[in-house]
Amino acid sequence: MVSKFVFGNPIRTKAVIEEIAPADFSIMNPLLKFSEDKSSFTIDLLPDDSIYGLGESLHGMNKRGFIYVSNNTDQVHHDENQYSLYGSHNFVLLNRFKGLKLGLFVDYPAKTTFDIGFTDKDVMKVSVEEPDYTLYVVEGDSALSIITEFRKIIGKSYKAPLWGFGYGQSRWGYKCTEDILKVVEEHKRLNLPLDSVYMDIDYMQDYAVFTINPERYHYFEDFVKKMKEEHIHLVPAIDPAVKRLKGYFVYDEGVENNYFCKDEEGNDFPVAVWPGLAHLPDFFKPEVKKWFGQKYKLFTDVGIDGFWNDMNEPAIFYSSKSIKAAADKLATLKDKTETLNLSELWDYLDTASGLANNAEDYKSFYHEIDGKKVRHDRVHNLYAFNMVEGISKEFKEIAPDKEILFFSRSSYVGQHRYSGIWTGDNSSYYSHIKLILSQLPGLNMNGFLYVGADTGGFAFNVSEPLLMRFMQISMFTPLFRNHCALGCRDQEIYNFKDIDSFRNMLNLRYALIPELYRIYNDCIENSKLMFTPLALAYPDDRACLDVDDQLMLGDDYMIVPVYEANATGRYVYLPEDMTAYVLKSDKDYKTVNMEKGYHHIDIALNELVIFVKKGKELKLSKPANNTALL
Amino acid sequence: MVSKFVFGNPIRTKAVIEEIAPADFSIMNPLLKFSEDKSSFTIDLLPDDSIYGLGESLHGMNKRGFIYVSNNTDQVHHDENQYSLYGSHNFVLLNRFKGLKLGLFVDYPAKTTFDIGFTDKDVMKVSVEEPDYTLYVVEGDSALSIITEFRKIIGKSYKAPLWGFGYGQSRWGYKCTEDILKVVEEHKRLNLPLDSVYMDIDYMQDYAVFTINPERYHYFEDFVKKMKEEHIHLVPAIDPAVKRLKGYFVYDEGVENNYFCKDEEGNDFPVAVWPGLAHLPDFFKPEVKKWFGQKYKLFTDVGIDGFWNDMNEPAIFYSSKSIKAAADKLATLKDKTETLNLSELWDYLDTASGLANNAEDYKSFYHEIDGKKVRHDRVHNLYAFNMVEGISKEFKEIAPDKEILFFSRSSYVGQHRYSGIWTGDNSSYYSHIKLILSQLPGLNMNGFLYVGADTGGFAFNVSEPLLMRFMQISMFTPLFRNHCALGCRDQEIYNFKDIDSFRNMLNLRYALIPELYRIYNDCIENSKLMFTPLALAYPDDRACLDVDDQLMLGDDYMIVPVYEANATGRYVYLPEDMTAYVLKSDKDYKTVNMEKGYHHIDIALNELVIFVKKGKELKLSKPANNTALL
Repeated sequence: MVSKFVFGNPIRTKAVIEEIAPADFSIMNPLLKFSEDKSSFTIDLLPDDSIYGLGESLHGMNKRGFIYVSNNTDQVHHDENQYSLYGSHNFVLLNRFKGLKLGLFVDYPAKTTFDIGFTDKDVMKVSVEEPDYTLYVVEGDSALSIITEFRKIIGKSYKAPLWGFGYGQSRWGYKCTEDILKVVEEHKRLNLPLDSVYMDIDYMQDYAVFTINPERYHYFEDFVKKMKEEHIHLVPAIDPAVKRLKGYFVYDEGVENNYFCKDEEGNDFPVAVWPGLAHLPDFFKPEVKKWFGQKYKLFTDVGIDGFWNDMNEPAIFYSSKSIKAAADKLATLKDKTETLNLSELWDYLDTASGLANNAEDYKSFYHEIDGKKVRHDRVHNLYAFNMVEGISKEFKEIAPDKEILFFSRSSYVGQHRYSGIWTGDNSSYYSHIKLILSQLPGLNMNGFLYVGADTGGFAFNVSEPLLMRFMQISMFTPLFRNHCALGCRDQEIYNFKDIDSFRNMLNLRYALIPELYRIYNDCIENSKLMFTPLALAYPDDRACLDVDDQLMLGDDYMIVPVYEANATGRYVYLPEDMTAYVLKSDKDYKTVNMEKGYHHIDIALNELVIFVKKGKELKLSKPANNTALL
Repeated sequence: MVSKFVFGNPIRTKAVIEEIAPADFSIMNPLLKFSEDKSSFTIDLLPDDSIYGLGESLHGMNKRGFIYVSNNTDQVHHDENQYSLYGSHNFVLLNRFKGLKLGLFVDYPAKTTFDIGFTDKDVMKVSVEEPDYTLYVVEGDSALSIITEFRKIIGKSYKAPLWGFGYGQSRWGYKCTEDILKVVEEHKRLNLPLDSVYMDIDYMQDYAVFTINPERYHYFEDFVKKMKEEHIHLVPAIDPAVKRLKGYFVYDEGVENNYFCKDEEGNDFPVAVWPGLAHLPDFFKPEVKKWFGQKYKLFTDVGIDGFWNDMNEPAIFYSSKSIKAAADKLATLKDKTETLNLSELWDYLDTASGLANNAEDYKSFYHEIDGKKVRHDRVHNLYAFNMVEGISKEFKEIAPDKEILFFSRSSYVGQHRYSGIWTGDNSSYYSHIKLILSQLPGLNMNGFLYVGADTGGFAFNVSEPLLMRFMQISMFTPLFRNHCALGCRDQEIYNFKDIDSFRNMLNLRYALIPELYRIYNDCIENSKLMFTPLALAYPDDRACLDVDDQLMLGDDYMIVPVYEANATGRYVYLPEDMTAYVLKSDKDYKTVNMEKGYHHIDIALNELVIFVKKGKELKLSKPANNTALL
């Protein structure tokens, strides 16, 4: 049962699409204790209470023990001290062992804080900036039925085309079509499956959105066609900010039609992103959504059928306002170099390092929502939502017969109806293998089914074994994209030594795709989790509460990725008798029947293990080098 | 057998104290393949080869799969992408399963790089900046005998007084004696054991070394005496840099006698650290060692008998030279705010963020070594060594009857004869519990036995369960100090809820101290490891190779800390039949006999588990609230 409680005057978010009549506060579950102004509530936690949800957030599957702040942030450091990542996914589930289960969705588009047993180990505290929000309380018999009920009120998830499950190669730094061609040819030469190559910001002319560099990406239409003949999809990145340049068509149209976010005085607010100074489209205005979405026709008309929206938190390197203030301040350092004290030094350093994604900038520009001026920070977490929603709608018009692959970096609940997401700029860290494992169930709970992390890690250099272990988790996620940052070690498979093992893993992926796609579709249609924590799948088994590094996949499988350097095996807990498939490839594998309980299992670097419930079997199809050939 | 190979003209380091005649290169172990100029060598690795050592470094106990750079660095971010920490501990051990064991010590005081199967997963490559170094190759029948042989040539480790094993409370931010008094009184009120309170930089007058703020730390001598009566040792931090201030005795003496490091022209080189602009004593000169060491008399005379040397990499916030260049550059930003391109932006930001510990600064000042001018970067990793060696020598003169507790942040091999170290500025991260576990055996191999990490984590906020789990690893390390940074959440035990459990853990520590101190002394006397990886203790057991999160403690015990949030148990591998002591306190515990093999064991948040070999028992003494009462 879903109860909807409205506090103050919330800004409408469109996260929930089912019409639900507001309930009277008197029927609020007494477990929730509210502050007087209703801007926060607490729940007392029992020792065995675990909390799930919060989608793209840090730490383990069980969110207890940390603080999380929903505040969409371009955050390249996914370290234990960070509170915010790219998305805001405010559904949490209280899982009381052999007791109450409770779903809570805090529908609020500004900063929302979940202190889950951090400040006080026995208390969860949820707070918003201003008491204008809608709280959905979902009650039910089981955690999974509560999740399904919540998923139903937020609507069906976006469905990606089958080729979106193929292997994709990406990097920031493919300077020209020749670089892309090399990727395709090397995969072909080494008989490595491939479905897509991603084009990062490099393809644009001076990073101006909806342009293509005519010298480095020449004969683009022909190139797209040529790639299509080889069943390779090119997937360009699209950023929201529009370069400030007179004569550039997108800029001119935006200025002329008042499409950009304004400062307090009503002038277009200049922010710097990749193209230098730029303006942010005000995606809260219907006409802006339409205008920006229609621009994708420039790509769909030449055969492009996949896009990723990057930088749409929106990320801001600096604003004209903030850099002027910083420059003025930094200029004063000259007179102080001999007398500087430490607080002044930190202040100077903070001035520089604080330019990007500065809270003050987010308070300095405005949207027009239903004719009213609304300061950005009040609706910050909805920026990407509105961008994606708008584009998705236009896809139906500009490419009515096409299934478009579409995913975003930033997100809010509800956006799952229009796109997938990837988990942003992770790093080439072993701990980030575990991180994606931890994020998957929370993302699914919040509606996001087409998800994946940068395989191999975005930032920093990868090693060959790390890339291999990363592949063995990406193996199971709908999006499977090897992506890394400019300046990092070449991360394409063909730069490493044991190509046979990489090929075996990719073949396994392609042999799994039909089954993964079936599960994915089932989860869309029936509002289910593709990835389920064992604690929710086996609610009466106390041992499952501690299992934070295994996941149920669909109804029949359990995955147990290896995420430690040099490990040649790992521990697993079996909540029931299962069969271990120990796979070197789709052809070379053995099965071992294992009993419910704790085990240690060997998993060599070139092996993947999938557990299958008794009486079920692992459905492997014949692999191919491309989903079109499956 | 130790073979010593001398390449080029190495700078003498004093790491090795045994006289060993250089061997001819023709007898070099053929496993090592040298580059032509001998500035690097490689070793081909087999799949099951593991590498141990490198002391204070990141990643697991088995160092394979990453790059490590010995380059003493004030590095607050102990993340997976970092190469250098505070110490340089260049002894590594190649452990070939059921095969060759080989110890290598690269005695070289500048940057030394260990690429251990990172760039090429099957190759370890060691390289130095210039081919002037000494390589010790230690061969033997077993890993442990090789380690003992290496430890013997580097000399016996520093022995801390018993009270150095007591619980210490520290924080950056105890502003005055009242703050310290509160710590002592709260521990007393709650019946919590305590042996020491640490004084961070706050106690000084304007951060000038060897001063005491007369207002906030008034009647200091009386205060020390009063604390001593309660068996509380006050342990001040001493930094190397001397505030540039005419009339300040340390500065005046330093200038007058040419005690400070010089720039190329021979002027005292100004660097900024806590006291603002300051000069670095040139500890490579014997007279400077003596002078600085004698200054400790100001403290020992009033009853202080413990010190920690901080910031002695040396950490440099900026130099006069670098900040002037930075200020000039940053001043130009004013003219560019409208036209800035991204590479210019990054350049400005790097200018600010690159001020601290800048490689150029380390190339801009000089030491005098045996009458010769030597650029700092060529001997960088020896700076702390010389500081500590000098002070240690003076202790014998200024406090001949006292056992001084003495540890340092930065270090080089050989320094272990004079002091302990702590592992620097870690964070309140669960992963940093595992980090200290990983560092312990490598530190021991490199001679450092008196070691410990900041319990609870230095940077960022701690949670109560995290502090508890941190205590359960610090429980076993000689240094057990709760320490945290200014601005972080209060981390003293009395700020949390379950005081009984904290008290139980502290009582356990004190009940263990006699046994820990016995083991510690045995390891000093017999050049043994206090903490041994299972792979080295059980070399024929393949399963032990994968055990990267358990350690043998002394000869009879095995420790298995919990380092995952919300975990109420963990997996363990028993290399032989053992008894598990599951301890809530020194009085409330049970024992369980367990067989060799893989197990899962319950370990609640308020429990500690110690495994004891069959036929042995856990030696618990009667606890006390202070080591003086043991």
